Amino acid sequence: MKVSIVTTGDEIMAGNVIDNNAHWMATQCWNAGAKVVWRVAVADDLKEIGDACKEASRRADVVLVSGGLGPTADDITLKAAAKAFGKKLEFNPNVFKDIENFFKRVGRPMSESNRKQAFLIKEAQPLPNKLGTAPGSQVQLGKATFFFMPGVPRELHILCEDFVFPWIKEKMSGKIFFQEKIFHCFGVPEASLDTFLKGVKLGKARLSFRYHFPETALKLACWDKNQKVVEQELSKAAKNVYTKVGEYIYGEGDITLSKVIGELLKKRKETLSVAESCTGGMVADTITNVSGASAYFERGVVVYSNPSKQDLLGVKEGTLKKFGAVSQEVAKEMAEGIRKMSKTTYGIAVTGIAGPTGGTKERPIGTVYIALATPKTTEVKHFCFERDRVEFKQLVSAIALDWLRKTLL
Amino acid sequence: MKVSIVTTGDEIMAGNVIDNNAHWMATQCWNAGAKVVWRVAVADDLKEIGDACKEASRRADVVLVSGGLGPTADDITLKAAAKAFGKKLEFNPNVFKDIENFFKRVGRPMSESNRKQAFLIKEAQPLPNKLGTAPGSQVQLGKATFFFMPGVPRELHILCEDFVFPWIKEKMSGKIFFQEKIFHCFGVPEASLDTFLKGVKLGKARLSFRYHFPETALKLACWDKNQKVVEQELSKAAKNVYTKVGEYIYGEGDITLSKVIGELLKKRKETLSVAESCTGGMVADTITNVSGASAYFERGVVVYSNPSKQDLLGVKEGTLKKFGAVSQEVAKEMAEGIRKMSKTTYGIAVTGIAGPTGGTKERPIGTVYIALATPKTTEVKHFCFERDRVEFKQLVSAIALDWLRKTLL
Repeated sequence: MKVSIVTTGDEIMAGNVIDNNAHWMATQCWNAGAKVVWRVAVADDLKEIGDACKEASRRADVVLVSGGLGPTADDITLKAAAKAFGKKLEFNPNVFKDIENFFKRVGRPMSESNRKQAFLIKEAQPLPNKLGTAPGSQVQLGKATFFFMPGVPRELHILCEDFVFPWIKEKMSGKIFFQEKIFHCFGVPEASLDTFLKGVKLGKARLSFRYHFPETALKLACWDKNQKVVEQELSKAAKNVYTKVGEYIYGEGDITLSKVIGELLKKRKETLSVAESCTGGMVADTITNVSGASAYFERGVVVYSNPSKQDLLGVKEGTLKKFGAVSQEVAKEMAEGIRKMSKTTYGIAVTGIAGPTGGTKERPIGTVYIALATPKTTEVKHFCFERDRVEFKQLVSAIALDWLRKTLL
Repeated sequence: MKVSIVTTGDEIMAGNVIDNNAHWMATQCWNAGAKVVWRVAVADDLKEIGDACKEASRRADVVLVSGGLGPTADDITLKAAAKAFGKKLEFNPNVFKDIENFFKRVGRPMSESNRKQAFLIKEAQPLPNKLGTAPGSQVQLGKATFFFMPGVPRELHILCEDFVFPWIKEKMSGKIFFQEKIFHCFGVPEASLDTFLKGVKLGKARLSFRYHFPETALKLACWDKNQKVVEQELSKAAKNVYTKVGEYIYGEGDITLSKVIGELLKKRKETLSVAESCTGGMVADTITNVSGASAYFERGVVVYSNPSKQDLLGVKEGTLKKFGAVSQEVAKEMAEGIRKMSKTTYGIAVTGIAGPTGGTKERPIGTVYIALATPKTTEVKHFCFERDRVEFKQLVSAIALDWLRKTLL
């Protein structure tokens, strides 16, 4: 099944908003095994929208249109589509009742302009919108089935989930099965992953990359008429991917570094505390994004001053004076200090210069020491990354967490 | 000047990557005063790309095309465009030399498939790419000037900045001036801003909204042939916007809540420390995203356990037992404790239940107490937000910072 996606709105044309609706619909179609052949965004203009709809219907079996169903003067999607296909708009009393009820429910008065929203293209079937006033609608125009939906993302999503994708899936029922696997990688540049994976045997599966600094996700996707084939092909391809880059994969599916660490710590009945300088709380923040983190995360301290390093971690004044706050020695005392003070199994410490100011010749901007104190030993690693402040914090936090993860394996 | 944007790539059609290139080019065109009339994304398919290029050239004076210039078999953009306009591809020895030099510079061997990249559409002018092997090119096709550029964002950006936008600006030289103002708002829903701003007099300026949870940015943009008119209209519109919603605007331009707080604290020569439970380090992390934060931020503690609240903040065991860790009383002791321990002017404390587990009947998920200790007094505010864990942390952190900001005004 071929799908065209049409999104409308001056704000998209002007780059004021990212066209996340088109992106979201494309992903959902792909997951359903439908093929998106054409994606177009047009301004709130009668002729542009009309042209786009006609072109879209020439190219596909299904056309998904979002935006321009609101009550204001620039909401003209249905009018444009109707005109392009020589159809009329028609007042739909049921839709009008839904809009009236919506306003009753939210306790606001209905304005006269909302009446316009009850006009649908003749012969269209309304798709009720639980979350707003703009009704969706489904109608045959030219050789394609059109779905008109509002541009408000949550309204679009619910209409797609309630009507569009069930319809697409039914039409394709038994014709195609889809499955995907996502692998999360850290500690390897995307370009290297690409090189390492050259020539990997994928069978019927398709491999793609998604880069979210500082991580890369690999996605294996597979479709076939036969569900068994999908499962077998995907599992064979996954095995081959692991053979090539398994050492960089920290988890599969809906997972993060901090979730992996949380699971490992819970299984081992161990605990963790962190002492941060240059990451400024990001390590603790990342760890505590996981629900249930209080089972293993005891405390974190953000020691931005020398007194705080002494008070909260027992870092020695002599060490600070002799080696400076950004040093291997201070990192070591920080990690051992937080571990001892909090009585946890592990203590992580980070000290460095995030920049863009504060560097010296001996310790340039980007210098960082990461320490990990375990019941057996304390190790310190030294890096230098020239990155903007926030990316520096993200990269250093991820390195610290990945180091702990490997220690827990 | 009318612009069409064509982006190519199976990964866009499948929703594997967000089409940020189209978004970025649209923003840049808008800023240059050029009008984007058509945006289309197509798969790596000869006919689809060719059709899109022809359609794009019918609609606009300039067509910006990105993607499909690489060395591999699915990189077919130039071939498709040439075919659509009945042109030939031609080997360009200078471009080939550039590619050879690129590989020498990065110390990698050049593969045979890179030779393909030296073929441009006949009569095209090459646009050298400093960052990669895919050369840009400029050529007249049909009634439009085409710019072909690689899909790698940083390569696309540099080619646009070096060649495309200077060219567009020169063509439009003296014809149009553009200026914009961005206002950052917090503490008000986007829909309410929209209502408050109904009927605001904008003159020639245009107002748009950008929602980045938990904040909303307002953008005023203005174009005119006369630079003076742009400045006057924009400043009049800005004044009118301030009259309507000024109380929610915390800053203009390239600013964040934590930057505003940093500036205010530095000006007042005052200092800050924070004690967090449910926000897990996000408040400290946000504060330390600002370069130079060490001038006023002394320390932060993430007290996820009762012992850490007692050790690091002096919260009394009795208070914890009597009122529970998530209570007004503990929040107050936390704020006063961190302020005293760190000897700072202000102490912020947060304690709550981020969820999705851990709620009780008396203290449902989303309950949060925020406390602010100043030299004069300690106040505690109580809220309940039913949100996902990370959004809860973001919202609560921003409320705490905005409260401090208002206190510092």
